[in-house]
Order: sequence, then C-alpha cells, then structure tokens
Amino acid sequence: MRLTSFTDYGFRTLMHLAGEPGRAFSTAELADEFGLSRNHLAKITQKLAASGIVETRRGGGGGAVLAQPADQIRLGAVVRLLEEGQPLVECLSVKGSACTIDGQCRLKARLRAAEAAFLADLDRSTLADIALAPASAA
Amino acid sequence: MRLTSFTDYGFRTLMHLAGEPGRAFSTAELADEFGLSRNHLAKITQKLAASGIVETRRGGGGGAVLAQPADQIRLGAVVRLLEEGQPLVECLSVKGSACTIDGQCRLKARLRAAEAAFLADLDRSTLADIALAPASAA
Repeated sequence: MRLTSFTDYGFRTLMHLAGEPGRAFSTAELADEFGLSRNHLAKITQKLAASGIVETRRGGGGGAVLAQPADQIRLGAVVRLLEEGQPLVECLSVKGSACTIDGQCRLKARLRAAEAAFLADLDRSTLADIALAPASAA
Repeated sequence: MRLTSFTDYGFRTLMHLAGEPGRAFSTAELADEFGLSRNHLAKITQKLAASGIVETRRGGGGGAVLAQPADQIRLGAVVRLLEEGQPLVECLSVKGSACTIDGQCRLKARLRAAEAAFLADLDRSTLADIALAPASAA
C-alpha cells in the first residue's frame, strides 16, 4: 500500500510551513532541500493553494505559508486532497474498471471501509502535531 | 493510496477459490479470466502457496485450492502478505530513506498507526465474507 510521492512531499512541505508559521517558503528552497525538481514541487504547492490549505505570496521574500492555523488542518484531509484520483484498487476509480467480478464483488465495500478507517485515524491528528522545529529547516 | 496489482489479483484469485472450495483452479483459467499473463498470476499463487494460504495440486485437474477454511483467512493478513515490501512512504521501507527530515519526523508514527487501523479494519472480515458465488466463475 503506497501513497504517491505527491502526498509524501506535500506532507514534508506542510511540516516545514507548520513549524514556522511566520515565514514564507519559496519553491526553490523547498525543492532544493528535498532534492526534487522545482516544477514538481510547484505542482504540489499549487494543489495545496487551490484547496485553501496554503497561501502563496508573490515578490521578494515571497513563497508559501499556511492559510489556516496548523491545528485546524487534519492529516486525513491532507491525504484526501493529495491522493485524489488514486483509488486503492482499479475498480474504486471514478472511471470504473474492466473487472469481471464487478457487480457481485463484496471486497470493494470492505476496502472502502478500511480506507475510511485509515483516514479517520489520521484525522485524529493535525499539522500542529507534526510541525517541524525551525532548526531542521536550515 | 494504492494497493499493488499483485494484491488486487491475489484477492480476485482467493475470492474464486473461496467460492468453490472443492475445485482446483488452474493458473491458465484464472489468468484468462482476469486478462492477465499466466506468468504474473503464477507469481501470485506461488506467494500465496509459500505462505500456506493456498495449496497447489499437480497434474490433470490440478491447480490452486485454499489450504485453510475461508473463514480462517483474514483480509488484513492477505494484504500484509501481498503488500510485503510496499511501504506507505519511502521512509517506512526496511532500507530506510534519504529524507532530510528523518530523525525528527512525527509523521511516520501517525502513518504507521493509520496503516494499522486500515489492516485492523480488514481483519474484521475473512475470505468467507467475500467468496464469489460459483456461477460467476463461469
């Protein structure tokens, strides 16, 4: 069971932002720290910004900051957002699937329930619980 | 969040086997139904056989059968087996990772707990709960 790298790096970004709420993090700075392309990181912050989790500031000293207090952002909500369009199995995608069992499958409901349990467990914590101490951002 | 196709087809295989406990399913038959290569399906049944979930019978009329009663095989156990070596995120792999946050990361423990909740939820059901009616195997 795997989360996308989109989610992985999205979390790393948010952990930095939550650790220093007063500071704007540039795409270049975060991409360099993660050893990731700036293009890939920009897509992640754009997705976070579009959903209202992050706010981007332009100009010198600009960059991304949290748009909400860290203790208001639940971890399950972050996963739901960043894993959008990544179903656990093919048949749970919006497009459906070519599975010959479909229609009489009793596994789908079990997988959906387990995924809900996964997200509910994450929703017990917020970004404030996983914020990085500023020193580590150096 | 995605399960591997290995797990997806492993479940489909087990759902057929659980639905007709008296019948041996050949690799060719299952691979044809799933539209999968025989080689890929053989790897799945080998893994299931090595763990004692499935038993393979040789010769004419041979194939795979459940090695245990379906109501003794928990769904979480199937996922644990087939997803072996597929960590939720890079840093949870046995090999570790190059993540610069590692060591002060408080996300890892949250992800581990959520994954445990996912598996515990699946463990509430067994293969008997998702067995396919024989007609669908036609």
